[in-house]
Amino acid sequence: MIDLYTWKTPNGRKPAIALEELQLDYVAHPVDIGRDEQFLPGFVAISPNSKIPAIVDRDTGVTLFESGAILQYLAEKTGQLLPTGGAPRYTTLQWLHWQIGGVGPMFGQLGFFANRAAERIPLAVNRYLTESRRLLDVLEQRLAHSKYVGSDDYSIADIAIYPWVVAVMAGNPTLLGDARASRPSMDRWMSELAQRPAVIKGMNVLQDDASAGT
Amino acid sequence: MIDLYTWKTPNGRKPAIALEELQLDYVAHPVDIGRDEQFLPGFVAISPNSKIPAIVDRDTGVTLFESGAILQYLAEKTGQLLPTGGAPRYTTLQWLHWQIGGVGPMFGQLGFFANRAAERIPLAVNRYLTESRRLLDVLEQRLAHSKYVGSDDYSIADIAIYPWVVAVMAGNPTLLGDARASRPSMDRWMSELAQRPAVIKGMNVLQDDASAGT
Repeated sequence: MIDLYTWKTPNGRKPAIALEELQLDYVAHPVDIGRDEQFLPGFVAISPNSKIPAIVDRDTGVTLFESGAILQYLAEKTGQLLPTGGAPRYTTLQWLHWQIGGVGPMFGQLGFFANRAAERIPLAVNRYLTESRRLLDVLEQRLAHSKYVGSDDYSIADIAIYPWVVAVMAGNPTLLGDARASRPSMDRWMSELAQRPAVIKGMNVLQDDASAGT
Repeated sequence: MIDLYTWKTPNGRKPAIALEELQLDYVAHPVDIGRDEQFLPGFVAISPNSKIPAIVDRDTGVTLFESGAILQYLAEKTGQLLPTGGAPRYTTLQWLHWQIGGVGPMFGQLGFFANRAAERIPLAVNRYLTESRRLLDVLEQRLAHSKYVGSDDYSIADIAIYPWVVAVMAGNPTLLGDARASRPSMDRWMSELAQRPAVIKGMNVLQDDASAGT
């Protein structure tokens, strides 16, 4: 049994998708970051960086924060969703890190300056909008030559990237326009992922009164 | 033999430190991002995200970009600098991801808005200064309870974090003040790492006319 501490955000949805794909038993516990619950002592003891998501694996005693590390842990625990060796393993990790270090932070800064900052700062909005478009273009080019992002196999790289692409498009429709129309390979990939039962369940984590996975 | 395409930046120094620690044969090739060389077709063919560092391992044919993936590749190639299983493995990966997704992007945005942006935007400077200080405090708290960042063993997590801490302090002395004086555990860790021969060599990659490692 795995305890998942999470919220309804792109990073919070990633481990939920992976847990659903891997059919692992888990309980999702809400950490409402809108109410600053990530700073409560009980959560900080699990996640000293005060960020969701975090997990506690009751079977192994492993406690982890950082969504990228959680995804790799779940993949290696089960031997699924990440090749165990060779070039495809590292290409998959490469695109996972591309999300962790680029897509997540840059889409996140765009969301802040475009939608939540106390002032409109064109320099900042343009900086993150330009970078977000560039990252979407890199994804399009990758998916024009590869069925999935990491390799020809669906993996934790897809699981990491998908919720962020959904979020940046939903959060910035005016700035980004129809981002899928001009990126047909990304559109094909998004359509496929959107139909996976585990993706549907993971994207809806904590949306119902009942916790997902129970 | 490994070809390392890099530049004199925190991300560019990480794989150089790891290659030196692991005593792997490599040649460092400069990609001068001040001259936009990361957008040249020859480099984009290796690193389609147009970012340094990237490697080509002539022995295995593996080509990789993203410093976090490169560090994990080098660690797994040699069986060093990353525990092969159990909680210490994932705790180390957790702190690696903490650098990739938090320390790197946030220190990087602080550097931009504090030192390079065309206008002074207090909201942006304060946003990234507050987050950078918080991240340094999280590091201090970790190192108060652990000899190294990932576990009791020196690892790729230390190698990933150290160049960024050096850079944020060097780049923002007025804003950050004496960041080491108020963080004694971080200070102890920085003093130790600064004396490691591989760290010294890696931090100085491309500083001489001769490429490091040759």
